[in-house]
Amino acid sequence: MRNFHVVIGGGGFGGLTAAKRLGKEIRNRKLPCKLTLIDKENHHLFQPLLYQVATAGLAATDIAVPIRSELNRFEQIDVRMETIERIDLEQKILFSSKGSLSYDFLILSLGMRVNYFGHDEWSSFCLGLKTLGDGRLIRNAILNAFEQAEIEKDPKEQQKYLTFVIVGGGPTGVELAGALAELSKKSLKKDFRNIDPKKSRIVLIEAAPRILLPYTERLSMQARRCLEKMGVEIILSRPVEKIEKGKIIFKGGMIEASTILWAAGVCAVQLPGLDVPKEKDGRIKVLEDLTIPGHPEVFVIGDMASLPGVPAVAPAAIQMGKYVAYEITRRIAFQSGLSLDRDVSKPTAFHYLDKGMMTTLGRGKALVQFRNFGFNGFIAWIVWLLIHIITLISFRNRLSVLIQWAWAYLRFQPGARLLSK
Amino acid sequence: MRNFHVVIGGGGFGGLTAAKRLGKEIRNRKLPCKLTLIDKENHHLFQPLLYQVATAGLAATDIAVPIRSELNRFEQIDVRMETIERIDLEQKILFSSKGSLSYDFLILSLGMRVNYFGHDEWSSFCLGLKTLGDGRLIRNAILNAFEQAEIEKDPKEQQKYLTFVIVGGGPTGVELAGALAELSKKSLKKDFRNIDPKKSRIVLIEAAPRILLPYTERLSMQARRCLEKMGVEIILSRPVEKIEKGKIIFKGGMIEASTILWAAGVCAVQLPGLDVPKEKDGRIKVLEDLTIPGHPEVFVIGDMASLPGVPAVAPAAIQMGKYVAYEITRRIAFQSGLSLDRDVSKPTAFHYLDKGMMTTLGRGKALVQFRNFGFNGFIAWIVWLLIHIITLISFRNRLSVLIQWAWAYLRFQPGARLLSK
Repeated sequence: MRNFHVVIGGGGFGGLTAAKRLGKEIRNRKLPCKLTLIDKENHHLFQPLLYQVATAGLAATDIAVPIRSELNRFEQIDVRMETIERIDLEQKILFSSKGSLSYDFLILSLGMRVNYFGHDEWSSFCLGLKTLGDGRLIRNAILNAFEQAEIEKDPKEQQKYLTFVIVGGGPTGVELAGALAELSKKSLKKDFRNIDPKKSRIVLIEAAPRILLPYTERLSMQARRCLEKMGVEIILSRPVEKIEKGKIIFKGGMIEASTILWAAGVCAVQLPGLDVPKEKDGRIKVLEDLTIPGHPEVFVIGDMASLPGVPAVAPAAIQMGKYVAYEITRRIAFQSGLSLDRDVSKPTAFHYLDKGMMTTLGRGKALVQFRNFGFNGFIAWIVWLLIHIITLISFRNRLSVLIQWAWAYLRFQPGARLLSK
Repeated sequence: MRNFHVVIGGGGFGGLTAAKRLGKEIRNRKLPCKLTLIDKENHHLFQPLLYQVATAGLAATDIAVPIRSELNRFEQIDVRMETIERIDLEQKILFSSKGSLSYDFLILSLGMRVNYFGHDEWSSFCLGLKTLGDGRLIRNAILNAFEQAEIEKDPKEQQKYLTFVIVGGGPTGVELAGALAELSKKSLKKDFRNIDPKKSRIVLIEAAPRILLPYTERLSMQARRCLEKMGVEIILSRPVEKIEKGKIIFKGGMIEASTILWAAGVCAVQLPGLDVPKEKDGRIKVLEDLTIPGHPEVFVIGDMASLPGVPAVAPAAIQMGKYVAYEITRRIAFQSGLSLDRDVSKPTAFHYLDKGMMTTLGRGKALVQFRNFGFNGFIAWIVWLLIHIITLISFRNRLSVLIQWAWAYLRFQPGARLLSK
């Protein structure tokens, strides 16, 4: 009997879900199949809470888990920490930094990376947030800015240290701004003697005329008012023109700030050799079964895939991961003459189940939008908290982390305020 | 009334204890006194458990706490994150990277740093363990070695990745070796497919004829046997001659290893301008009241101080911190005409209360020595665990961390196995 090899590129929500599902199917149905997951990092990241690591609310270990320990119960799964470099679609080979892998089925789930819209030189002065390393860099930058302000004698320089600019008013920018406002105005309020962290200036700059574009205008306006009440300055309709060290220039103005954070754009990770139709932001236009044209053995899932009506969010990646795992199981079973409990002869299309979206602004403050129905405030925050706690528990299986986190979170005393190289 | 300024250099066990005690005395007795603590890091480190961060058993946030949050309840205490550069003993001024501070009393508690015995060039190939950053570097090196071994095809190179050499058989070296043996032989045993982490080679090299010199010969021998049973190779009486990238040369032999850890020596941090009698390892010979000759206003405490009969351990630093806090309170009260509950006219000498020493070898295995009485095994480990849990709780005040830690620890499933830049 032919032995299949499934390769998964990327251990994010899409890739890890697909790996777990396929691992189970291989074990339970005794499919003649081996699976290899490649990722450049050794951990899966719970990205929706990464802004908390960046703002010292959570430790890196609270929101990341080694990919190996998530998958070590599946003997047929091999995990390799490598960088994927190139693909040969015709030969069905994936080339990595250390070698190459032949595949029968390939699942690409490489996600997005920070995109400075062609201004990569800005990356030195303006930190983006995508990896755990980014989160740590931003946390160090923020905490260091307060420390430098405390010992700085020149009031002008001091003000620069106490100014934080966030570029981009999407969910990431909004969550960073809210968490930064709470950090400076609540958590740190008693910590300094020469400066008053409450007086820090937190500015959110957005090129569009309103923040949180994916939400309804009403919710977006409520979020804006809420952030302003928390002390965040919001500048709208101002595209950024230039970023230098400690200075940001936008249409009609300029701000000096030692900490500038970039939450304005991401683009799909590019893989040389993957010459298929793409969106402007690099996402790959997939067919309705998430494969690419002419290659029914290559699936693209998660943020990297573009399919009408499916947003680039974690729940979509998870649903796609489950779908491709089932689809590949179906095909391998069919080709191996194994029977499945369901009728496996007909191909299926991926259907996205919209679970709505939510963004948190701060403690007790969040927005929830489910199709055309949206609400904000404390109830929205409770919904946000419960959903994240439940997802994080199933993901980490460590209740104690959550207890600890909830405790620190509610007391405004985050435990992760460590500056370290 | 004259206002006093006490400056503390260093936020380790000695400095932080002194700051907390003095903070309380200033507040309760209304002493006319301000206090400034300077440290180059923003956190206090629970050093006795740093080897756990280095071997992925604990997260950085579990064993470190921001100095500011430990001291923010004392309004008279100012914390500055700066590097101390030089001292002028005559003018009573401490110079730092950002300015200078005049003091009436100075407490120096700068601790030790890794010492390569004049071979600073070894530091690039051989990691020392003193700061939280060091702990993270070592953890990344260890985890990365396993990842590289997993994808390496050349068996010789693979063996190099799976060889870990620890130089120095003192408590740090022994704890690192034991934790590394458990990590590779227990925690990681199911994680890989191409390598067997159980077959990693863990070598402890010591120049002296036995490990753990401060302990009795009997305990040292028992520790050696215990480590060997855990799979650690112990090489005695072999001084290191040269360390290169991936290679260590010692008297009579050579080992190729991609990970070489240095636990063979430390020396006291040196402060330009502090021209006083010192030991060979740079520790300052203090008088019986912990001051330096000719300068009754300058105290040196913790690992940086050398006093006959007092070892360089955390309990000694804590006792010294309490002593100088009381001594300075006494002097300020006396000079300000305030009365104290005790007779304050007579100077006192520092007395060290020996609380014994202990070293852990692994789960359920430790050594305890109290003066001439020593024991090892499970009871010793329970004593070690209780003392560390109690100290860590009082230090962190966060029971949940301990619950989480104990749980992960007992299951051999440490949660901190994250590789990150």
